[in-house]
Amino acid sequence: MSESASTETLQAYCQSVAESAREASYQLATLDTATKNRWLEASALALMDSVDVILASNQRDLESATEYGLNDASIDRLRLDESRLAGIAQALREIVALPDPIGEVITGFTRPGGLRIQKTRVPLGVVFFIYESRPNVTADAAAICVKSGNAVILRGGKEAIHSSQAIVDVLSQTASQHGLPSGAVQLVNTTDREAVGHFLRMDHLIDVTIPRGGEGLIRRVANEATMPVIKHFDGNCHVYVDADADLEMAATIIENSKCQRMGVCNACESLLVHHDVAEQALPIIADRLRTHQIEIRADERARKYIHDAIPAVPEDWGAEYLGPKISVAVVDSLDAAASHINRFGSRHTDAIVTDSLQAANRFTQLVDSSAVMVNASTRFNDGGMFGLGAEIGISTDKFHARGPCGLRELTTYKYIVNGDGHIRT
Amino acid sequence: MSESASTETLQAYCQSVAESAREASYQLATLDTATKNRWLEASALALMDSVDVILASNQRDLESATEYGLNDASIDRLRLDESRLAGIAQALREIVALPDPIGEVITGFTRPGGLRIQKTRVPLGVVFFIYESRPNVTADAAAICVKSGNAVILRGGKEAIHSSQAIVDVLSQTASQHGLPSGAVQLVNTTDREAVGHFLRMDHLIDVTIPRGGEGLIRRVANEATMPVIKHFDGNCHVYVDADADLEMAATIIENSKCQRMGVCNACESLLVHHDVAEQALPIIADRLRTHQIEIRADERARKYIHDAIPAVPEDWGAEYLGPKISVAVVDSLDAAASHINRFGSRHTDAIVTDSLQAANRFTQLVDSSAVMVNASTRFNDGGMFGLGAEIGISTDKFHARGPCGLRELTTYKYIVNGDGHIRT
Repeated sequence: MSESASTETLQAYCQSVAESAREASYQLATLDTATKNRWLEASALALMDSVDVILASNQRDLESATEYGLNDASIDRLRLDESRLAGIAQALREIVALPDPIGEVITGFTRPGGLRIQKTRVPLGVVFFIYESRPNVTADAAAICVKSGNAVILRGGKEAIHSSQAIVDVLSQTASQHGLPSGAVQLVNTTDREAVGHFLRMDHLIDVTIPRGGEGLIRRVANEATMPVIKHFDGNCHVYVDADADLEMAATIIENSKCQRMGVCNACESLLVHHDVAEQALPIIADRLRTHQIEIRADERARKYIHDAIPAVPEDWGAEYLGPKISVAVVDSLDAAASHINRFGSRHTDAIVTDSLQAANRFTQLVDSSAVMVNASTRFNDGGMFGLGAEIGISTDKFHARGPCGLRELTTYKYIVNGDGHIRT
Repeated sequence: MSESASTETLQAYCQSVAESAREASYQLATLDTATKNRWLEASALALMDSVDVILASNQRDLESATEYGLNDASIDRLRLDESRLAGIAQALREIVALPDPIGEVITGFTRPGGLRIQKTRVPLGVVFFIYESRPNVTADAAAICVKSGNAVILRGGKEAIHSSQAIVDVLSQTASQHGLPSGAVQLVNTTDREAVGHFLRMDHLIDVTIPRGGEGLIRRVANEATMPVIKHFDGNCHVYVDADADLEMAATIIENSKCQRMGVCNACESLLVHHDVAEQALPIIADRLRTHQIEIRADERARKYIHDAIPAVPEDWGAEYLGPKISVAVVDSLDAAASHINRFGSRHTDAIVTDSLQAANRFTQLVDSSAVMVNASTRFNDGGMFGLGAEIGISTDKFHARGPCGLRELTTYKYIVNGDGHIRT
């Protein structure tokens, strides 16, 4: 579809894509695991058989990359070669190995009158997945959605459109060869931004939207979507050093949480220290952070022990720096730390360092985040680190899915009720 | 607060209510089951001790009832007496007996590096509950929310405002006597419609909104809410009579699904019959429905066997009559029946009558509804009938909660991760 398609044509196109996905979703819900796995295995092989076509398509994207203003790091993420394609194929095989959540009987019971009730795990239905320029995400997202019994509408970034189309062509062809319905995996064939708006209004055809990318994209999607959205805006993660903390352990955990990788959502952005240990702890921690050239932005009480710290301004408490900065505050109690985190945090990942079991228990109860760490780095909040298998995103919402989202988070349940002519009296 | 309060005053009031609920929610999440149950037991006793005050408040509501245009049935639902108050108290005791979902370890495991991960059930946080004029719902909703560890903001109908306030006064007083935070149970003290709009914009303070009432109210809430909503719009429930059905059983199930109580969301509104058995089945079924004076609106094929049926118009297939009418169509196959249901239904409750195991399995897989019944009346989709205990509503959404919603559906989970100084390398 050309960029200049009229609004009516575009809307009709989006409608037909979504209707086809909805139709496919009913059939996908009935597929057994073996069929879905055969498709994944065949797709892994077919991707490698199509290496020439896929790399040629990728070349077209690379030729437009500078025109789209991509920087070197983005161009590198966009680039495919035989070894990266083998990695994409391998990721499909790893999804074969994951247990199929569909059909799990979550609970079941027989009522006094003999009615048999099973709460059974079923797919959500249709997933609208919006992502940016990495072509490997195309195959990954399709595999996760279909393995969990869902139809998927993929909306990739314009920078990778030819690569993504070549990959989806392969996945679609193997789909039809292995008994999957034709609307199971579709790539939106226009880069018109308006198309996203059309899809976001189709809550009768799409069950969930998952945006992955910058905060601007995610906020737009959350505002416009009429269906549920699985998302996270940001990750302002905290480490709290308790009065009973091992201070060497605290310094190591803060160093790792802040510095191991700075541009990610589970990196530490803010440090809270109990006033009883502030004098002893803060110089040790500041020394560690200085070896990584971290800028420390501290409140007045913390600056007594970190003389070179920059005075923190109110905006620092809510900031996600994604770089070499950290905010530091001294708090009067564990409850005050939890209250600060619940007020300024992102409900993403927050950690306590303590030797007190009582403190650990209270902190994990009070802090309202997807993951609460005790004596461990915030960097562990990740589907891979948790051993949950492939993930399609991470959620800082509390509704439906929280934290890393994989196959199971793309499911819902229905009650299947069996009687023998039972009527209600 | 008076009806004429300025928008700024109203907004400030709503903000303070929501902030107080949010603050309370963190403390409620740490309460043990025994404390919550003691509050429920004490509230049941205190309601009966306050019978004079509550009945006097109810009398004030009854005096305004005709002014609000309530009909006799609505006035009867509004009326309290000592025996009905005893019923409200008894309902609180029944919630004591329900298992507390909070703290359940949904799954837990130790990672190869020794990190211990527990996926633990926690409250959603703050529930905004909007309902109409029945005062018993006030106590019920408060009890369900608090037992599941949530703070609740109750917005009752103006018709029952004095009764609801008297009940909430009792619940709040026992709450403070039993160690519950002061914002745990709050009733919005204004009947200004604008207040609802203010609350619906507070997604940073309220975790879920549950509207219970007419479709207009629910659509308004779904459109305006910035936080998730647990809702159902309507219930266009189907019974499908398969080629392999026992036709006597089919007639009995349809009669019960349609006629046992007509004004409810799990009543049958539409009947589909496989063409192989239409000639034999439809006269039997029509005879049964005629004994209840049900108006039959049938498609052309069905009218061949029900000569007095009214021709169905396209609107009939999506209609929720809530009264003595039913739409009837003949279908060519089970798949066509499922397809019709998925297109026109409400994702609420749909049933098949069949003796074929294969047909039962395919129907339950294809039909995308909160409950799919095999050889049982649609009227069984109900928290009480399922034995799930007290319910706060029913959901026809697929996200988070589906079907009857009780204590567990008002919860989420968090990952609690324990290490011994673990860092990521």
